[in-house]
Amino acid sequence: MDAISVIRTKRDRGELTPEQIDWVIDAYTRGEVADEQMSALAMAILLNGMNRTEIARWTAAMIASGERMNFDTLSRPTTDKHSTGGVGDKITLPLAPLVAACGAAVPQLSGRGLGHTGGTLDKLESIPGWRAHLSNEEMLNVLDTTGAVICAAGDGLAPADKKLYALRDVTGTVEAIPLIASSIMSKKIAEGTGALVLDVKVGSGAFMKTIEDARELASTMVALGTDSGVRTVALLTDMSTPLGLTAGNALEVRESVEVLAGGGPQDVVDLTLALAREMLDAAGLKDADPEKALSDGSAMDVWRRMISAQGGDPDATLPTAREQHVVTAPASGVLTRLDAYDVGVAAWRLGAGRARKEDPVQAGAGVELHAKPGDTVTEGQPLMTLHTDTPEKFDYALKALPDAYDIAPAGTSFAPLPVVRERIA
Amino acid sequence: MDAISVIRTKRDRGELTPEQIDWVIDAYTRGEVADEQMSALAMAILLNGMNRTEIARWTAAMIASGERMNFDTLSRPTTDKHSTGGVGDKITLPLAPLVAACGAAVPQLSGRGLGHTGGTLDKLESIPGWRAHLSNEEMLNVLDTTGAVICAAGDGLAPADKKLYALRDVTGTVEAIPLIASSIMSKKIAEGTGALVLDVKVGSGAFMKTIEDARELASTMVALGTDSGVRTVALLTDMSTPLGLTAGNALEVRESVEVLAGGGPQDVVDLTLALAREMLDAAGLKDADPEKALSDGSAMDVWRRMISAQGGDPDATLPTAREQHVVTAPASGVLTRLDAYDVGVAAWRLGAGRARKEDPVQAGAGVELHAKPGDTVTEGQPLMTLHTDTPEKFDYALKALPDAYDIAPAGTSFAPLPVVRERIA
Repeated sequence: MDAISVIRTKRDRGELTPEQIDWVIDAYTRGEVADEQMSALAMAILLNGMNRTEIARWTAAMIASGERMNFDTLSRPTTDKHSTGGVGDKITLPLAPLVAACGAAVPQLSGRGLGHTGGTLDKLESIPGWRAHLSNEEMLNVLDTTGAVICAAGDGLAPADKKLYALRDVTGTVEAIPLIASSIMSKKIAEGTGALVLDVKVGSGAFMKTIEDARELASTMVALGTDSGVRTVALLTDMSTPLGLTAGNALEVRESVEVLAGGGPQDVVDLTLALAREMLDAAGLKDADPEKALSDGSAMDVWRRMISAQGGDPDATLPTAREQHVVTAPASGVLTRLDAYDVGVAAWRLGAGRARKEDPVQAGAGVELHAKPGDTVTEGQPLMTLHTDTPEKFDYALKALPDAYDIAPAGTSFAPLPVVRERIA
Repeated sequence: MDAISVIRTKRDRGELTPEQIDWVIDAYTRGEVADEQMSALAMAILLNGMNRTEIARWTAAMIASGERMNFDTLSRPTTDKHSTGGVGDKITLPLAPLVAACGAAVPQLSGRGLGHTGGTLDKLESIPGWRAHLSNEEMLNVLDTTGAVICAAGDGLAPADKKLYALRDVTGTVEAIPLIASSIMSKKIAEGTGALVLDVKVGSGAFMKTIEDARELASTMVALGTDSGVRTVALLTDMSTPLGLTAGNALEVRESVEVLAGGGPQDVVDLTLALAREMLDAAGLKDADPEKALSDGSAMDVWRRMISAQGGDPDATLPTAREQHVVTAPASGVLTRLDAYDVGVAAWRLGAGRARKEDPVQAGAGVELHAKPGDTVTEGQPLMTLHTDTPEKFDYALKALPDAYDIAPAGTSFAPLPVVRERIA
């Protein structure tokens, strides 16, 4: 077995054998297959595809590259969620404690933002004292005592994926559905959850720009999960406009706490409840009532215990940015479009995101929205507020926004897309 | 400008801009673009192609990565040949002194064998004392005093190509016509020859297996040369069966000397004369008579002077392998096929070629043929003799040969392919 013959097989539109896949993933993890060989293979996969059999074996080989976690000692059924990433997507924050409050255990291994999409760990780190990095033992302990844990994945989980993801990021090979699906599912299966709900975003602010691509990614991942014994469901959800009214780290934590307090923007509440019901169903807790857990404060109780258990102070004042700039509506009428990608890029440029993995983020930076598609606006009213500690970035952020929204004449009939567009099981 | 945006352009079937091409070649040569990024780009080029404008710019950028040679001080017109490589292709050896004997200057920068194809420098190194590596000054001096020089290309010539070629070799991206064409032509144009004849091999023993691929490669290279002011012509020549009766280093030198002495196998003589006429025509020496220069010994005189000028002894006894093994005809009839690739692999396994760049080759190893397609053979007669210093390799070499030939019933009418199949100018 050698790297060149594996590359040639895929280059010439052949099907990789199980032996070729097992070998190339293992040899790449060990450093026997070089980065330049794996990137040529990744490009060949991006352009020539992999079938379901190849993707399943590829995923299994990535799982086999590291350890598998085990939650059998927990008294509760485990259930997890994964989002493919979007703008203003703070759903994990209210969702994990909510589902825990309804009786499930939620081991939520999360990531950081890269590019225009935010990262759950960056958001929670705006809470003073909160720690993202736990040992496996600490993680199990938080999960066991509070019902939920949100933390960074340990280094032992799917190391082949870690190495391959970093390589894809610098070689223009991120956008390959077989590689995206196997990357996500290898970590989730290795993590050992019993049930998994996938939130596959579709729209300008998502990696999948079309519903067809989102469907293909979702059904590929559902098949991978199901075949590995994980009860897996996917919701295709709208990411043409930001979720809720905030994009930015501390801004999103504040909005999440509003949801846990029984308030918050309707789309965030709707999606949190839809995902909670799917997670609880998949965990076999069909009688749970997540709506009640939001209104009676039990979800908030779990949130406070979970944040405390990881060193955070749930009562601390959250950081705010030093400077604000208000963008006003240039005309009166109905807001018919507010582009998720453009708002995400603006938030990123204000300091909420990072250009390189090693960059820091600003806790207070981001974009606060004062209107959403479907709302009526009046000329001169605030449309959004930009927040940053580095006001010299305002101009750069504003450059992302001139085509970010459309305002139609007053009285125009307009119905925004529903948050949940399709369900794939 | 960054590597990922260049990779994405080609990945998404776009046309690379001149600025993108200049930047990526320069940045790769300087080490700013990493190997893993260049290999992803090479795979995208292999699968999505480059148009003529892109290939011309790519070639120009590779030339600009290093020095350009200049033969303006020579009194004779320069003319060069490049072969895409085959089995038993010793043509450069008689051709360079022959063309020099007819009045042109022949600066023949040559390479080494890799895989099943032999290399001119490996062949000449079987002559005791002969040196492949000359300084630019030594090279010019040999060329000026003898009319021809065959030596290794200096490190200053198209360093981007050297780096990229080594990368393509280990990443399954050798077989991309735009990259093959620009690799060959960047070196030949930088070398500064006034005229160039391309011998594009087609058949099982060549990189181009089909006449269509060979035509595409040839016309791409002819256009590149012509646009750079080099008078360029290509012959598409047969490589379905080995050239001549030998494949192996010293074996091929011996056969070349036979040709220079006015003998030798007909196909080698025919191709040598065809290429000589094209080289002389392209150099403006239309009245030259290469056939006479072979028969009157003047080509042999240049050969002897050229070998001596590089430290070789033209009268030395050439090395022979320690062991021989004869393969006999299993039936009587007409030999209708003798496969170039299989014979090349057998010669390589016997020690004539190398698996890795740093491996040594055996001077005496190789395959000697006793019949060629079209010949009548009798059951039990010798078909070929295998030569090696490492007789434990006989079995391994023989494994390449069971399907290497076909013998049809006696009386079958069979006409072998002509050596020169097409001409592209």
